[in-house]
Amino acid sequence: DFLQALEEVTPAFGVAKEEMEQVVQNGIIHYAPVIDELLHSGELFVEQVRSSSRTPLVSVLLHGPPASGKTALAATIAQASQYPFMKLLSPESMVGFSESQKVAAINKVFADSYKSPLSVIVVDSLERLLDFTPIGPRFSNAVLQALMVLLTRRPPKGRRLLVISTTSVRPVLTDLGLSESFDAELRIAPVSTLRSLEYVLDAVELFHDEKQRRQAIRMLQQAGFGEEDEQNSRLNIGIKKLLGMIEMARQEPEAVAERLIGSLMGLGM
Amino acid sequence: DFLQALEEVTPAFGVAKEEMEQVVQNGIIHYAPVIDELLHSGELFVEQVRSSSRTPLVSVLLHGPPASGKTALAATIAQASQYPFMKLLSPESMVGFSESQKVAAINKVFADSYKSPLSVIVVDSLERLLDFTPIGPRFSNAVLQALMVLLTRRPPKGRRLLVISTTSVRPVLTDLGLSESFDAELRIAPVSTLRSLEYVLDAVELFHDEKQRRQAIRMLQQAGFGEEDEQNSRLNIGIKKLLGMIEMARQEPEAVAERLIGSLMGLGM
Amino acid sequence: DFLQALEEVTPAFGVAKEEMEQVVQNGIIHYAPVIDELLHSGELFVEQVRSSSRTPLVSVLLHGPPASGKTALAATIAQASQYPFMKLLSPESMVGFSESQKVAAINKVFADSYKSPLSVIVVDSLERLLDFTPIGPRFSNAVLQALMVLLTRRPPKGRRLLVISTTSVRPVLTDLGLSESFDAELRIAPVSTLRSLEYVLDAVELFHDEKQRRQAIRMLQQAGFGEEDEQNSRLNIGIKKLLGMIEMARQEPEAVAERLIGSLMGLGM
Amino acid sequence: DFLQALEEVTPAFGVAKEEMEQVVQNGIIHYAPVIDELLHSGELFVEQVRSSSRTPLVSVLLHGPPASGKTALAATIAQASQYPFMKLLSPESMVGFSESQKVAAINKVFADSYKSPLSVIVVDSLERLLDFTPIGPRFSNAVLQALMVLLTRRPPKGRRLLVISTTSVRPVLTDLGLSESFDAELRIAPVSTLRSLEYVLDAVELFHDEKQRRQAIRMLQQAGFGEEDEQNSRLNIGIKKLLGMIEMARQEPEAVAERLIGSLMGLGM
Amino acid sequence: DFLQALEEVTPAFGVAKEEMEQVVQNGIIHYAPVIDELLHSGELFVEQVRSSSRTPLVSVLLHGPPASGKTALAATIAQASQYPFMKLLSPESMVGFSESQKVAAINKVFADSYKSPLSVIVVDSLERLLDFTPIGPRFSNAVLQALMVLLTRRPPKGRRLLVISTTSVRPVLTDLGLSESFDAELRIAPVSTLRSLEYVLDAVELFHDEKQRRQAIRMLQQAGFGEEDEQNSRLNIGIKKLLGMIEMARQEPEAVAERLIGSLMGLGM
Amino acid sequence: DFLQALEEVTPAFGVAKEEMEQVVQNGIIHYAPVIDELLHSGELFVEQVRSSSRTPLVSVLLHGPPASGKTALAATIAQASQYPFMKLLSPESMVGFSESQKVAAINKVFADSYKSPLSVIVVDSLERLLDFTPIGPRFSNAVLQALMVLLTRRPPKGRRLLVISTTSVRPVLTDLGLSESFDAELRIAPVSTLRSLEYVLDAVELFHDEKQRRQAIRMLQQAGFGEEDEQNSRLNIGIKKLLGMIEMARQEPEAVAERLIGSLMGLGM
Ligand SMILES: Nc1ncnc2c1ncn2[C@@H]1O[C@H](COP(=O)(O)OP(=O)(O)OP(=O)(O)O)[C@@H](O)[C@H]1O
Ligand SMILES: Nc1ncnc2c1ncn2[C@@H]1O[C@H](COP(=O)(O)OP(=O)(O)OP(=O)(O)O)[C@@H](O)[C@H]1O
Ligand SMILES: Nc1ncnc2c1ncn2[C@@H]1O[C@H](COP(=O)(O)OP(=O)(O)OP(=O)(O)O)[C@@H](O)[C@H]1O
Ligand SMILES: Nc1ncnc2c1ncn2[C@@H]1O[C@H](COP(=O)(O)OP(=O)(O)OP(=O)(O)O)[C@@H](O)[C@H]1O
Ligand SMILES: Nc1ncnc2c1ncn2[C@@H]1O[C@H](COP(=O)(O)OP(=O)(O)OP(=O)(O)O)[C@@H](O)[C@H]1O
Ligand SMILES: Nc1ncnc2c1ncn2[C@@H]1O[C@H](COP(=O)(O)OP(=O)(O)OP(=O)(O)O)[C@@H](O)[C@H]1O
Ligand SMILES: [Mg+2]
Ligand SMILES: [Mg+2]
Ligand SMILES: [Mg+2]
Ligand SMILES: [Mg+2]
Ligand SMILES: [Mg+2]
Ligand SMILES: [Mg+2]
Repeated sequence: DFLQALEEVTPAFGVAKEEMEQVVQNGIIHYAPVIDELLHSGELFVEQVRSSSRTPLVSVLLHGPPASGKTALAATIAQASQYPFMKLLSPESMVGFSESQKVAAINKVFADSYKSPLSVIVVDSLERLLDFTPIGPRFSNAVLQALMVLLTRRPPKGRRLLVISTTSVRPVLTDLGLSESFDAELRIAPVSTLRSLEYVLDAVELFHDEKQRRQAIRMLQQAGFGEEDEQNSRLNIGIKKLLGMIEMARQEPEAVAERLIGSLMGLGM
Repeated sequence: DFLQALEEVTPAFGVAKEEMEQVVQNGIIHYAPVIDELLHSGELFVEQVRSSSRTPLVSVLLHGPPASGKTALAATIAQASQYPFMKLLSPESMVGFSESQKVAAINKVFADSYKSPLSVIVVDSLERLLDFTPIGPRFSNAVLQALMVLLTRRPPKGRRLLVISTTSVRPVLTDLGLSESFDAELRIAPVSTLRSLEYVLDAVELFHDEKQRRQAIRMLQQAGFGEEDEQNSRLNIGIKKLLGMIEMARQEPEAVAERLIGSLMGLGM
Repeated sequence: DFLQALEEVTPAFGVAKEEMEQVVQNGIIHYAPVIDELLHSGELFVEQVRSSSRTPLVSVLLHGPPASGKTALAATIAQASQYPFMKLLSPESMVGFSESQKVAAINKVFADSYKSPLSVIVVDSLERLLDFTPIGPRFSNAVLQALMVLLTRRPPKGRRLLVISTTSVRPVLTDLGLSESFDAELRIAPVSTLRSLEYVLDAVELFHDEKQRRQAIRMLQQAGFGEEDEQNSRLNIGIKKLLGMIEMARQEPEAVAERLIGSLMGLGM
Repeated sequence: DFLQALEEVTPAFGVAKEEMEQVVQNGIIHYAPVIDELLHSGELFVEQVRSSSRTPLVSVLLHGPPASGKTALAATIAQASQYPFMKLLSPESMVGFSESQKVAAINKVFADSYKSPLSVIVVDSLERLLDFTPIGPRFSNAVLQALMVLLTRRPPKGRRLLVISTTSVRPVLTDLGLSESFDAELRIAPVSTLRSLEYVLDAVELFHDEKQRRQAIRMLQQAGFGEEDEQNSRLNIGIKKLLGMIEMARQEPEAVAERLIGSLMGLGM
Repeated sequence: DFLQALEEVTPAFGVAKEEMEQVVQNGIIHYAPVIDELLHSGELFVEQVRSSSRTPLVSVLLHGPPASGKTALAATIAQASQYPFMKLLSPESMVGFSESQKVAAINKVFADSYKSPLSVIVVDSLERLLDFTPIGPRFSNAVLQALMVLLTRRPPKGRRLLVISTTSVRPVLTDLGLSESFDAELRIAPVSTLRSLEYVLDAVELFHDEKQRRQAIRMLQQAGFGEEDEQNSRLNIGIKKLLGMIEMARQEPEAVAERLIGSLMGLGM
Repeated sequence: DFLQALEEVTPAFGVAKEEMEQVVQNGIIHYAPVIDELLHSGELFVEQVRSSSRTPLVSVLLHGPPASGKTALAATIAQASQYPFMKLLSPESMVGFSESQKVAAINKVFADSYKSPLSVIVVDSLERLLDFTPIGPRFSNAVLQALMVLLTRRPPKGRRLLVISTTSVRPVLTDLGLSESFDAELRIAPVSTLRSLEYVLDAVELFHDEKQRRQAIRMLQQAGFGEEDEQNSRLNIGIKKLLGMIEMARQEPEAVAERLIGSLMGLGM
């Protein structure tokens, strides 16, 4: 019966793996120590679900600004678990779903997970799953209620489940009463020091030679991005957004640094 | 006719028993005298329904903070009644139900109960059955109206029924006009004294030896959790949440007390 | 044609009688003169419908606090009429009905009544029929509009109809514009003097002997329930609620008076 | 073609006549000169529709307090017209209709009227047709929009139509933008002088003899109902409501005047 | 292909012509110079659509108070164009249509117009097409969105279209964002000078002889309607409403002027 | 497989090209340097999508006042890309679509684009796709949520996509939380200097001879349109609106300048 359950689950597993890989296509750049700490916390939760008999369900919330790398990090933790069942529940595959279709799709993933002894589900971008809009505000109460139950419902006897959810609007979740459904929260910090920025620029090989590099850094310092006080830093940008700006700048090879600084300042003020 | 009624009811009964056991998987830890008092009050209601001919229906509300043990205690009282019909009505089995499906499911449990001479129904987590959200606020008026009638409707002649409902948002019920539907209310107190906390830590055997235990208690006192004044206690945590924190702390054996205190303080401030 | 109409109506009649008896299972305790006055007013309306050719429809509103005996008194007046058609229209038999099903069910009762020369309909608990909730407020406008028409629509030539409605939220009815649909209103007073309370306690034989009785009364006086000024009385409790408290108190024979006073004080303050 | 149109219309006509008679079962009591003036104005509109070629449609609004005799007066004017097509459009025949069923029913009556060269439609109780409730406010916008068009749409060439609508909430119609759809308005005054009251009491033969009559009038004067200043009169009651009170008072022959005054005062203060 | 398109369109054309004639049954009275100016502006737009290759679509808004002659003037301009496709889009033919039926009907008229090389569509009474009510406000967003697109969508290559819309609530259109959809706006002035009034009275031959006429004018002057300052004029009445009042006054031949003045004053204050 | 994908896409491509040409029927007039700068920025994005492997999706927002040429410029950039898949997603082809039909249509265009290695989609007039109305405000949350996902969802491996969206209500998009979905924004400036205006007038050959031209310019200067300070310029008009006014003025050859100035002033004040 257990082997059969595994079999049924296998295909879904295959698909999920591909999905997970897709969202970390650009890799994880370790631009700051917090990245490693966050991945380590993830490992601890993976272990707790595997080992503690009293907590067959652990529910974690990954939150940070838009484009800060939430989806990539959640998928990285999930993939590292090596659990037999892994699934990415993403609004990207639910465009045009009705409320009840969404609830059914979400419900099914949880039901499927109960067939495996050990499962991890990434519930990506809660605000999008909820169809949330600040005007009104509007949101799908049906999806909200389903999540409130699913995120806290004990799996059946002998099954264990780790849920990693992501959001860029944590205060909204509190207003909706959804925060209480999580056992723990992890915050993702944006790139906010020049050191981190340098690390990223090197990682994506933006500069052709050391000279161009040094000159660009000097320009960034002059533009005021060099102050290392994280709170008041002019720099405060999600890794995904930063990677996008770098590619735009790359289009004008003769003025890479100028364009990058232009983009960063349009944002930082 | 009566025997036949019993027969029809039997299968439902079997299922219900399993459900009830499932929600008290971690047992009841008697961390404070109020736990016993509450269970005793429960027994009195069980007796009243069994014996008084003038009150064939008694409706009780169990309320307390999230994760304070409401579901487990309600199920414990119900199971102890040994009534021929017992049923746990829980939002967990209604994910994705439409309003009318919910009403029908709830209505059916009450209708089924009327087939047995003595019945107990646990209506778990009223706010979830009502699809309640503070923003709006939104809720299912159809479910609310059904509950208002069902919680006060006399069973047919010769039938007796005890209803135990739970909620973590008692004031909301008052706003909705649902409080008046209950004959009595019982409050569940969270863990709020160091003595209770110690009792729980011992019960789940968190520490390997007496030394580690004594040291941890000292640290908790130093962190300010030792003041026995219940009102102003820094300690104020539901038993379910506490059990979860303990398991997380257990993941780092070398720093169990530190992590537990960290969790408790993140919460208590 | 008339005889046939009667025949068609007969089965409904039979059912209705049982329903009416069911709601006065605990009898009417004449705890105060107002009870008799109210029943007498009821008789006058019964006579007016029977005799006056200019008012073939009379519509009366019985209102009072929750659990004050509204349903029992309305049913008592209706049963005493001995009209060939009697019907109790109650939300208890409409759980899970959609708006249009409710309207249809209500409409049918009125249509049925037109087949009998003399009819009485008890429209119980208007606020529940209307699915009323103070938050919003929400209510079924479809049911409201149907009631507004039905409560004032003249029966066809040669037919006469008495409608007795009940509510515990009279001010809400005024806000909804429904008050104007009634020809008269009758208020039900809760139990508010010690004399009335004694009368009830005796009627249900709470005490085993005269000594226990006298002692309990003394305790009630000491608790401040003896002041006969109805307005400022600490005592102010619906008869149904009072009967429930008495049964709860009866569970602890050694402390009957204490528990009763406890219940009354939890309520009166 | 014309004769055929008349034939098709005939059955509806027959029904309508009965309906119209039904609503004036208690006759028209000419308690004040304004009643005759109002009926005369009605005649003038009937003539205008019959004779003026430039105004094939005239739309009149009869308004006054609840129970002031609106329906009876509108039906009286319509019946007096002797037009080949007469119809009473009343919410009483639409209980339980959906919005679209209501619109269809109303639309049909206007379409039917276009088959007759001369027609009169009484659109009774606009607020009920609109399902209007002050809370919200709520109303059927579909019915409102249909009425706005139908009340001002010219009948086809060679057809003429008089529409008489009634309402007890004229200010609401203005808020809804419906007032502009009427060519003229007529106000119905309630009974507000002792003289009018006497006239009504005599008309319904409340008193057995002249002595009883004189004594009752004296009592009414003493109660303050004799001041002939219409604005500040304590008396201000719709004829239908007054007739109801008289019948209630008639139930207690020994205290007719007392009960009548009691009813009038409960209302006038 | 073009001839065939014309053929398909022909029947619609025939119907439309009749519709257009129907709404100007009472003719156009040239009571003031602005009437001629407005008709001339209409001609210019007709010419622009016929001749300019850069503006194959012109969209005009005719606005003025209720009953000021909007529909009649729009139809007059459209008829004068002699375009092969003319259509009156009126709420009068859409009573009881659902939102989507309305959108479909409107959409169809525009699609039909694209089959003719030159077309004119009168979109009558936008507020009624939108099901607009000031309370809420409520309106059909589906119709609004459809109109926003249709009123500005270029016809296909080689087709030209003039759209003339009317409304009596121009500010509402601005609030709804619909004003921007028009290329130009034309205001219709009500009758506001005694000279205009005289012109109308003569045109409809209200008076039997010159003496009666002179006397009536004198009475109007005495009533204060003779001040020629248009802004502060007591006179301010739509031509349709005025024509209606004249017909009512005509019913009482002995007091024509008195009744007319009465009507005018009831309105002007 | 790739060739086949191209084949499937071909027909859509054909249609799209025609659509794109249709919206720039009147050509692009280079009335100011910003027009060229904007087109150059467009080219850069086209190149980035073609070349950078890290940004397979780039999403750009073109915004400006109503009638400022947004659609024409977006289509021009798209057409210039010469990508194998080009598509204009416009509300003009979705009149009368339900919410879900709209979502499906939009979704399909994105799904189709994934079949081509390089694609560009113009999402025209976001506010109309969203059925946005300022009153309420109302909008289709379903379309909004779909766009939020589609505008940021990475195409599958090996596919690249440029999305150019347009809007005239950029602040509304921010309120709706949609602004964050764009990688970059481009603003379209209206015609705001006399020099630009002259350029346009010449381009469309409004004047017959140089004399008429010079005189008209002088009149424009006198009317105050000659001040070159862009911020406080009286001139501030979208190119589409301006072209419309010119055609209207052209209808009265003898007074071209007067009418144009009249139109411009009606707008500029
Ligand atoms: N340290 C890092 N953490 C996360 N992502 C990283 C990191 N370094 C590089 N990346 C890359 O940055 C991108 C992060 O994008 P991702 O979609 O995860 O952001 P997000 O926060 O989920 O964005 P959104 O708010 O739009 O959902 C990925 O392409 C990922 O490969
Ligand atoms: N004294 C106790 N009272 C209640 N539960 C206890 C007690 N001691 C241990 N437990 C355990 O604590 C857990 C309480 O969880 P339970 O689901 O009943 O909480 P809850 O208040 O219903 O939570 P929620 O607010 O999420 O519904 C159960 O696993 C139960 O076995
Ligand atoms: N004088 C009395 N008047 C009414 N009911 C009485 C009286 N004396 C005893 N009773 C009993 O009290 C109970 C009254 O309950 P009932 O359901 O009529 O109250 P209610 O006001 O309708 O309550 P609710 O507000 O819940 O509808 C009945 O069981 C009835 O037999
Ligand atoms: N002068 C009168 N005017 C109108 N009705 C009169 C008059 N005299 C007697 N009546 C009687 O009074 C009653 C008036 O009732 P009617 O239903 O017309 O009132 P209404 O204003 O329509 O009430 P509602 O506000 O409930 O619709 C009728 O029975 C009618 O026969
Ligand atoms: N100068 C005029 N302009 C317009 N209508 C005129 C004029 N002279 C006479 N009429 C007549 O006046 C009437 C105008 O009515 P019409 O329905 O056009 O008004 P409207 O403004 O559309 O009214 P509504 O606000 O109800 O839609 C028509 O019967 C028309 O024949
Ligand atoms: N420089 C220019 N930029 C844009 N359009 C131009 C320019 N010069 C001429 N045009 C013409 O102006 C018109 C611009 O209309 P377009 O529909 O693009 O405006 P829009 O801003 O999309 O309007 P709307 O707000 O109604 O959607 C087109 O006919 C185009 O051919
Ligand atoms: Mg993400
Ligand atoms: Mg629980
Ligand atoms: Mg009751
Ligand atoms: Mg009426
Ligand atoms: Mg009109
Ligand atoms: Mg555009």
